Amino acid sequence: MQPKPFILSVKALIHDGHGRYLAIRRSAASKNNAGQWDFPGGKLDAGEAFDAALIREVAEETGLTVQLEQVLGAGESELPDRKVAYLFMLARARGGEVRLSEEHDAFAWMTADELAAADVCPQFRAMARRLAPGPP
Amino acid sequence: MQPKPFILSVKALIHDGHGRYLAIRRSAASKNNAGQWDFPGGKLDAGEAFDAALIREVAEETGLTVQLEQVLGAGESELPDRKVAYLFMLARARGGEVRLSEEHDAFAWMTADELAAADVCPQFRAMARRLAPGPP
Repeated sequence: MQPKPFILSVKALIHDGHGRYLAIRRSAASKNNAGQWDFPGGKLDAGEAFDAALIREVAEETGLTVQLEQVLGAGESELPDRKVAYLFMLARARGGEVRLSEEHDAFAWMTADELAAADVCPQFRAMARRLAPGPP
Repeated sequence: MQPKPFILSVKALIHDGHGRYLAIRRSAASKNNAGQWDFPGGKLDAGEAFDAALIREVAEETGLTVQLEQVLGAGESELPDRKVAYLFMLARARGGEVRLSEEHDAFAWMTADELAAADVCPQFRAMARRLAPGPP
């Protein structure tokens, strides 16, 4: 049997320097995980480097320009036709106001404790629960 | 100050189905980490998907054809001019004999306990020590 292909998705945990992280809520019309808390990011376009892809996705989904600071962890999810590998990066916003795209309908700056208790998309829960309280 | 760019490197922990993983030793002539135990893998070529890059690097460095099974974790290292993000994947060889390139001069199938005690490149030690004993 041919194995399912793996695709890579890069996600940003954007912190505010005071122990809060930006979570964005998936719109009710989302095909997957509607209404659950998500982190900005997504798949690489063809030929795109992972850092450029993440910076682009964050800008599209939040309006923020970020600087990538650190690797936080990895995760995985399985879809009917493929598997997704997630790479989580700690990032810092260089200023700007959050402006969401149509994919998300709310945002919140949450502490590690709040994220651990929030209805986060299942494939990101382990990462959200590994965040230590306080500034990263 | 302009932040250092991040590049992505994908590494394979190739298991034999019986709790052993393939480690390869960096040649004495290596610029970095000479003589230390390494895992096959490397950077993505321009435009290359992460899974294709890993399968290619494993073939170049070990002669093995592998199937990617699972995301194992992530890590990071810092060089003078850039940072490297590592994504570690569990992989299974579809057969074949190990044939090393000039970059490595020895290989060994190690248990999790052996890997935890081996002189593994510093940037892979945390990952090597997180492997549970026994078949993955």
